[in-house]
Amino acid sequence: MTDPADHSRLSLNTETTHGWSLLDAAAGAAAAGLSAIGPWRHLVQETGLAVASRILADHGLRASSLCRGGFLTANDEAAVKASLEDNRAAIREAAGIGAPELIMVVGGLPAASAPGGPARPYPAAAASDPARDLVAARSRVADRIAELVPYAAEHRVRLVLEPLHPLFAADRAVISTLGQALDLADPFPAETVGVVVDTYHVWWDPQLREQIARAGATGRLAAYQVCDWLLPLAPEPLHSRGHVGDGYVDFARITTWVRDAGYTGDVEVEIFNQQVWDTPPEQTLATMSERYTRYVLPYL
Amino acid sequence: MTDPADHSRLSLNTETTHGWSLLDAAAGAAAAGLSAIGPWRHLVQETGLAVASRILADHGLRASSLCRGGFLTANDEAAVKASLEDNRAAIREAAGIGAPELIMVVGGLPAASAPGGPARPYPAAAASDPARDLVAARSRVADRIAELVPYAAEHRVRLVLEPLHPLFAADRAVISTLGQALDLADPFPAETVGVVVDTYHVWWDPQLREQIARAGATGRLAAYQVCDWLLPLAPEPLHSRGHVGDGYVDFARITTWVRDAGYTGDVEVEIFNQQVWDTPPEQTLATMSERYTRYVLPYL
Repeated sequence: MTDPADHSRLSLNTETTHGWSLLDAAAGAAAAGLSAIGPWRHLVQETGLAVASRILADHGLRASSLCRGGFLTANDEAAVKASLEDNRAAIREAAGIGAPELIMVVGGLPAASAPGGPARPYPAAAASDPARDLVAARSRVADRIAELVPYAAEHRVRLVLEPLHPLFAADRAVISTLGQALDLADPFPAETVGVVVDTYHVWWDPQLREQIARAGATGRLAAYQVCDWLLPLAPEPLHSRGHVGDGYVDFARITTWVRDAGYTGDVEVEIFNQQVWDTPPEQTLATMSERYTRYVLPYL
Repeated sequence: MTDPADHSRLSLNTETTHGWSLLDAAAGAAAAGLSAIGPWRHLVQETGLAVASRILADHGLRASSLCRGGFLTANDEAAVKASLEDNRAAIREAAGIGAPELIMVVGGLPAASAPGGPARPYPAAAASDPARDLVAARSRVADRIAELVPYAAEHRVRLVLEPLHPLFAADRAVISTLGQALDLADPFPAETVGVVVDTYHVWWDPQLREQIARAGATGRLAAYQVCDWLLPLAPEPLHSRGHVGDGYVDFARITTWVRDAGYTGDVEVEIFNQQVWDTPPEQTLATMSERYTRYVLPYL
């Protein structure tokens, strides 16, 4: 029997309380009885690494992860170089605040980030368009993970590949399933490349059960993030993430699969949602704790 | 070398020229040099089966498919009975107009069609919610396909399972990948249960190449529908389907995979898009033919 007041594995992702500084979020999380927090880089950069570390320590919080590195799909040399440098900085930041995991959102097709805008036509007279070549973009991700792995290992930070919902395949992440993330992770040591299960992104996957089990068996199940799938989608679909229980995700089942895969880490609540952001953050924390207690904790 | 004027495999799905009657669409398709048309049921029902058949014959058109049956996920007895009856009617309609294939959009979670609306909360004190149980909904689809197969076989109509983009998993189709559709089709004869590759729905799938090959090897690759993935999504995401070449899909590659799988059937253009619908349908037909010639036909 789980203790319904046990919030020792519940972690606040700082975007859930968007608008709060790292200090605000740490104080709020501690006041709500949490033991962990998942900061975004811009909050850590605002205070600097030393202060960020002290804020966490002062509030008795560990960093469940750092959000985020990635954006590895560019196909021009300058952008590749900039991306690798930025990821090395992110690795140093994760190490600096004691976050064992750096969440990696790997980026979309070049066509989606090109200056010509998202819907620029195929180049005239070309058989195919490199900016729309999903197979090649995925292959570049593999190459760049390989380049970052030694640096991450040196800093004892695990790169955690995040499959994003396929609706973001063009513009945000060419990793679309947990199975694909695990295939990409396969060549590397489990302690250096892991995967995250974010319910919003993977709840629909017919292979979810077996791939969560595979992530557990291979020692790569590095993080569990929860939020719900809301409909209708927000104009910015990324902001359709809702409180656990408000949408369509079957948390009892997915949490059971995650538990059965041997996961004993934190459960991070990461919500991007204007309505949630318009709510006083203390109330958001209370709702998130209550939903965790009701829909997630009993199955952990 | 393909003949750029060869439109013998190009088919107009009637929703692309939304607003046109079956007679309008048939006349338009014939005038554009097409040999096939993919009608929706409501247009066939408007004229009746006998007249619909004559319209097609008079314009020298075959029916590439009939859209659509499905919606098999209900979990109450009355809705199940109504759904099976409606699918039997759709099978008779397909047979009546000589459409060899009935496209099946299998339906979403009960939570999305329940009277309480999409976001109704979990029932109080329940461990889990049957209306959100995706595994059970998928299992009901399998059971109901099994119930429909003998009737379809008797009418020489193939049930063609359509994987829909995972963004529709909650509210429209719990079949989300081509591999899953093929798994569901496996127990049945290939001539009775097939699958459709619709670029909008499957373009992102990391397993697309191998699953298209599998569909070909098992004799189940029944239909190829093309349209593009546009961003930003329309407020109704189903209406983000665009003309080939206007979005992010790599048609050269996917068409090559479809060809290499041995597909020799029609290529149906199915676009739901308010801007396209606001365009004179003759112009839509011209654009669709031009894009087909440029981006699809060379790889067929």
